[in-house]
Amino acid sequence: MKIVVIGTNHAGIATANTLLEQYPGHEIVMIDRNSNMSYLGCGTAIWVGRQIEKPDELFYAKAEDFEAKGVKILTETEVSEIDFANKKVYAKTKSDDEIIEAYDKLVLATGSRPIIPNLPGKDLKGIHFLKLFQEGQAIDAEFAKEKVKRIAVIGAGYIGTEIAEAAKRRGKEVLLFDAENTSLASYYDEEFAKGMDENLAQHGIELHFGELAKEFKANEEGYVSQIVTNKATYDVDLVINCIGFTANSALASDKLATFKNGAIKVDKHQQSSDPDVYAVGDVATIYSNALQDFTYIALASNAVRSGIVAGHNIGGKELESVGVQGSNGISIFGYNMTSTGLSVKAAKKLGLEVSFSDFEDKQKAWFLHENNDSVKIRIVYETKSRRIIGAQLASKSEIIAGNINMFSLAIQEKKTIDELALLDLFFLPHFNSPYNYMTVAALNAK
Amino acid sequence: MKIVVIGTNHAGIATANTLLEQYPGHEIVMIDRNSNMSYLGCGTAIWVGRQIEKPDELFYAKAEDFEAKGVKILTETEVSEIDFANKKVYAKTKSDDEIIEAYDKLVLATGSRPIIPNLPGKDLKGIHFLKLFQEGQAIDAEFAKEKVKRIAVIGAGYIGTEIAEAAKRRGKEVLLFDAENTSLASYYDEEFAKGMDENLAQHGIELHFGELAKEFKANEEGYVSQIVTNKATYDVDLVINCIGFTANSALASDKLATFKNGAIKVDKHQQSSDPDVYAVGDVATIYSNALQDFTYIALASNAVRSGIVAGHNIGGKELESVGVQGSNGISIFGYNMTSTGLSVKAAKKLGLEVSFSDFEDKQKAWFLHENNDSVKIRIVYETKSRRIIGAQLASKSEIIAGNINMFSLAIQEKKTIDELALLDLFFLPHFNSPYNYMTVAALNAK
Repeated sequence: MKIVVIGTNHAGIATANTLLEQYPGHEIVMIDRNSNMSYLGCGTAIWVGRQIEKPDELFYAKAEDFEAKGVKILTETEVSEIDFANKKVYAKTKSDDEIIEAYDKLVLATGSRPIIPNLPGKDLKGIHFLKLFQEGQAIDAEFAKEKVKRIAVIGAGYIGTEIAEAAKRRGKEVLLFDAENTSLASYYDEEFAKGMDENLAQHGIELHFGELAKEFKANEEGYVSQIVTNKATYDVDLVINCIGFTANSALASDKLATFKNGAIKVDKHQQSSDPDVYAVGDVATIYSNALQDFTYIALASNAVRSGIVAGHNIGGKELESVGVQGSNGISIFGYNMTSTGLSVKAAKKLGLEVSFSDFEDKQKAWFLHENNDSVKIRIVYETKSRRIIGAQLASKSEIIAGNINMFSLAIQEKKTIDELALLDLFFLPHFNSPYNYMTVAALNAK
Repeated sequence: MKIVVIGTNHAGIATANTLLEQYPGHEIVMIDRNSNMSYLGCGTAIWVGRQIEKPDELFYAKAEDFEAKGVKILTETEVSEIDFANKKVYAKTKSDDEIIEAYDKLVLATGSRPIIPNLPGKDLKGIHFLKLFQEGQAIDAEFAKEKVKRIAVIGAGYIGTEIAEAAKRRGKEVLLFDAENTSLASYYDEEFAKGMDENLAQHGIELHFGELAKEFKANEEGYVSQIVTNKATYDVDLVINCIGFTANSALASDKLATFKNGAIKVDKHQQSSDPDVYAVGDVATIYSNALQDFTYIALASNAVRSGIVAGHNIGGKELESVGVQGSNGISIFGYNMTSTGLSVKAAKKLGLEVSFSDFEDKQKAWFLHENNDSVKIRIVYETKSRRIIGAQLASKSEIIAGNINMFSLAIQEKKTIDELALLDLFFLPHFNSPYNYMTVAALNAK
């Protein structure tokens, strides 16, 4: 069987590796317009903020690896068209050579692309996006310039908040804008996001929330020099747009069933409306166990797993995704937040009737006074069924990075908050309290 | 209704508090021969090893708290007999006053007692056990003596290993004995326990494993001065017996159905063979989801939860325990180990046919070279059903203290190792890798 994979980042790599390792013997062709693969975008802010010196280790696979496994890999090759009826992919190499690859099975792993705010001045020099390695390099080069002092970051989601931290670590003045009233609004309720806002402000990042960018203005050299919002005008030397991503599905969105944001609709086998076409990673929808429905959640962790599922199904073993909870985490200047499932706000937006239980305690036993950070927890649950649909944790302790994985499984398994109260969570003073804050938050649920 | 609770430590307190908070109006009598309550025994080594200065904060409840809630609480009062037929408890106060308390419902929360090795010289001065606060005080006083230099700890389970660390932190020479070939043998397989052995040895603790104590010898003042094993004789100034605990069920073991170690047999409502008698905490059996059967696991975390379950059932709300996995953790000189369910060795001893998948990786993304400890993981699963029945984690990273809670839930929910491979575990370089070591260990399972 011949399998063509368009897109060689996390999802495409996971699909190809699953096929190569578990179902050897298939002919695999991988195509990507980029020159590099497996770039860990979430490492950009760590590198650009000089928490690590170089970007070299932000990759985990390269074309030669796949060539060595017998894969035909075409980098810097742009797919121009897919003929779904005749099962052919048309592409052009860097040197304009025409490529036609027939397929038995096609895998769309084209990921997502940054949303471009359609504002006057959007194409000025000095306005950047942040997804690809090359975009990270461009921003790193800008940060190196002495004259680039004031940086506006538009969008205080994960990417925006992280690159704002990086800019501050590089000694820049940083203005962080968002239309929402807090940072991280899509993953956390205000009571939690405010903790990150305070952390950002304490570290000298200027917050401009509830504020909408209207226009970018240029200096004489055509470089962005001002950002105009619905509230004021600010002098800036650089703008980084981080208002979000959308599915990069143009190649197929007119032929295959798509979600409201253009993402390719798939079932739990990652199969699209065309049985010979699979879609994986950020280009595809995904089943949310919190929502109990398909939705769109662009995360590298989902990309990897969806690739594994597609690889098995294409390889011949029927395997359903167990669905996801949108588990995520962020660490800014040592302040950590993790969440999974839906926030109260997100749940209400989706019409779910929910309640929540909040609690705050020290991570470790109260009698340990050193290195014992406080932890805020919120458990969100359906009021009637009491099924857990979300959890948020915030602390300087890293242990919350493990505990959120338990909540992710609890949502997947449709556990109620009352069942969670009885879950066997171990106790050792070095790590937690006899009445673990997760147990107490669950016990306290009205 | 009148409810008598015998034993006022974690399980008894949880039962009483559940009744008081959720089902007010019952008459509650609490009886305990001890003068203190709610002592966190797992804090003893932390206090005696001077990681904290004083024991004052190792308690979370006192008799007056319960008196204020209308409870009749009799401390330093020893129950001599229970007349199950006539539902009466006979006890004697410190001043030898006779107490008779009739009950509608009785709760046995008498905990566990240290196993005393029946060896010549077992009653010599300078031979200690470690369960109660008073026993912690006695050991602390011994550690303060200049002349007490060489300390033998018999039994390298959790309590023995922790008090060995404490003795070393107090500058003592420490000899740690165990009949097994490693420390922590009941919770960890050798490949994992060896990591703790190396850690103990590196910190100067003399390990004597695969060695059985035979006799204790005394000096002229009747103080223990030598320990004789099946291999050699050792001069010591103090012996701390930590060979384990057994259910403290003498008051009822001849009248109620008991487990092979004398623990009171209970169902998932914590009800004993006598419908008016409940048993909670270390005196009772408990349902193990790993084993899919009742067994005996003496842990404070189980004690708390079993008390909550009993309180609800007595109060009138039918509630089944969700069972436990025996989740546990230990941290010795900053080396952390957590486990849940059964080790390979424990599973095989119980006749289960199991396989396991091991993996080792850094906790955080590979490109973070600071504060990024390696983590060893073992997932144990039934060979045929591939149901996960155990997990072991070892690292200097504290994040394993959260991750083990996910495995505890996975065992409770009978997840297979293949389902675990697809679980939504988030990725952020600050906390983990794109291919999380838990995902990889599950993917690698043969």
